[in-house]
Amino acid sequence: MRKLLLIGIGVGDPDFVTQQAINALNRVDVFFLIDKGDVKNELIAVRRDICQRFIAGDGYRFVTIDEPLRDREAAGYEAAVQDWLDRRAALFEEAIGTELGPEDTGAFLVWGDPTLYDGTIRIIDALVARAKMPFEHEVIPGISAIQVLVARHRLPLNRIGEPIHITTGRRLADGLPDGFDNVVVMLDAGFAAGQLPDADQIDVYWGAYLGTASEVLISGRLSEVAEEIGRRKRQLRADKGWIMDTYLLRRT
Amino acid sequence: MRKLLLIGIGVGDPDFVTQQAINALNRVDVFFLIDKGDVKNELIAVRRDICQRFIAGDGYRFVTIDEPLRDREAAGYEAAVQDWLDRRAALFEEAIGTELGPEDTGAFLVWGDPTLYDGTIRIIDALVARAKMPFEHEVIPGISAIQVLVARHRLPLNRIGEPIHITTGRRLADGLPDGFDNVVVMLDAGFAAGQLPDADQIDVYWGAYLGTASEVLISGRLSEVAEEIGRRKRQLRADKGWIMDTYLLRRT
Repeated sequence: MRKLLLIGIGVGDPDFVTQQAINALNRVDVFFLIDKGDVKNELIAVRRDICQRFIAGDGYRFVTIDEPLRDREAAGYEAAVQDWLDRRAALFEEAIGTELGPEDTGAFLVWGDPTLYDGTIRIIDALVARAKMPFEHEVIPGISAIQVLVARHRLPLNRIGEPIHITTGRRLADGLPDGFDNVVVMLDAGFAAGQLPDADQIDVYWGAYLGTASEVLISGRLSEVAEEIGRRKRQLRADKGWIMDTYLLRRT
Repeated sequence: MRKLLLIGIGVGDPDFVTQQAINALNRVDVFFLIDKGDVKNELIAVRRDICQRFIAGDGYRFVTIDEPLRDREAAGYEAAVQDWLDRRAALFEEAIGTELGPEDTGAFLVWGDPTLYDGTIRIIDALVARAKMPFEHEVIPGISAIQVLVARHRLPLNRIGEPIHITTGRRLADGLPDGFDNVVVMLDAGFAAGQLPDADQIDVYWGAYLGTASEVLISGRLSEVAEEIGRRKRQLRADKGWIMDTYLLRRT
């Protein structure tokens, strides 16, 4: 039967791959790469570099799947994402059906961890639900941006016995959830924390391009560094054409 | 200057170590192991196994630090943990001062990820604050139990755009936080989810001894599997003498 591996490759630094991921890489016949356009070609280069470094021999090949465009201006966020995931699933099904032989192993190399704010597992579940093509699949965890963020800042994610809340920039725009003292923010297009009240009672630990040579870290009292983070983020995005960042907010 | 590395080794399976961790292991002169008594000697065996497998040569040694007893019956949970951490820090300072030469590199091999519900970073911060002994330190992320849990269940941790809440069994006893649909529970001595209302509207994905040969996974509607999980957990703990488990709750 066809096999699909969802391999978490960590963020940025090829050294974040696990031994389990290396073993998995060496079982793969076809790597499916997703082409998100010029600006993120750097992320594809990291994937090719990982294969070259950690795979013995050259018995594998790459197949590129074009990323469908997503309507980021649509009114219904969840509906727009769902529509985009459906179109993506159809493209993936076609690529897998065409490129992967019935006994072959294919893989997606997922930035960070496949279980955290990534759509690949959902695509695979959609393929399973369509049931047009039988396959087995396996998920291989990878080091996430959150882990690299706090490791670089040399921080525990939680204080003793405290809960941790992981949310999106979109949701943070409605304010810090009540009673939660450790909040990690992902997928923030701007810097939503800059609008929070009580910024003099919140510490922020921010990181961009984590794990890469372009990594930037800023930390401090939110009231003191929010403007710097916002400015820096706009400037980095302008310079590089894209940005990936995340941050931890902690009530003092 | 002395160097201390806090190396996340993942959970259970030595294959969870990252290439970064392997590089770090090979720089270490002294590994500090924490002896938590007979029942957890299995966890020490995994650490020794990792060193043997991934370190070239034998230019390293192990130093065992006895774990101070913790008063688990104390009224103030946070104060009791703090007192225990203080005694632990004093023991660590002594061991490091005695065993690590001024140019040496020492390491703690941390189960899972050093930033997630683990006390080692706090101990190191306490040593930095005491300022009796200068050293540099570095945190190396590892695959956490949460990641292995959802990878084994082949689940995304969050549904589209939803937040994720990570909490403790102690806090879950007060009920599921309002409006949060994805809750991961750590450090649950019993199975606090068994007491939740609306169990017929919650799915649970549970895992014990994740990443080890003894791994157990159970999932289903909470109302249907809560009793089984509770019973299985009591039985496994009785058989093995200890248990490590975690679970994801998801509102349907």
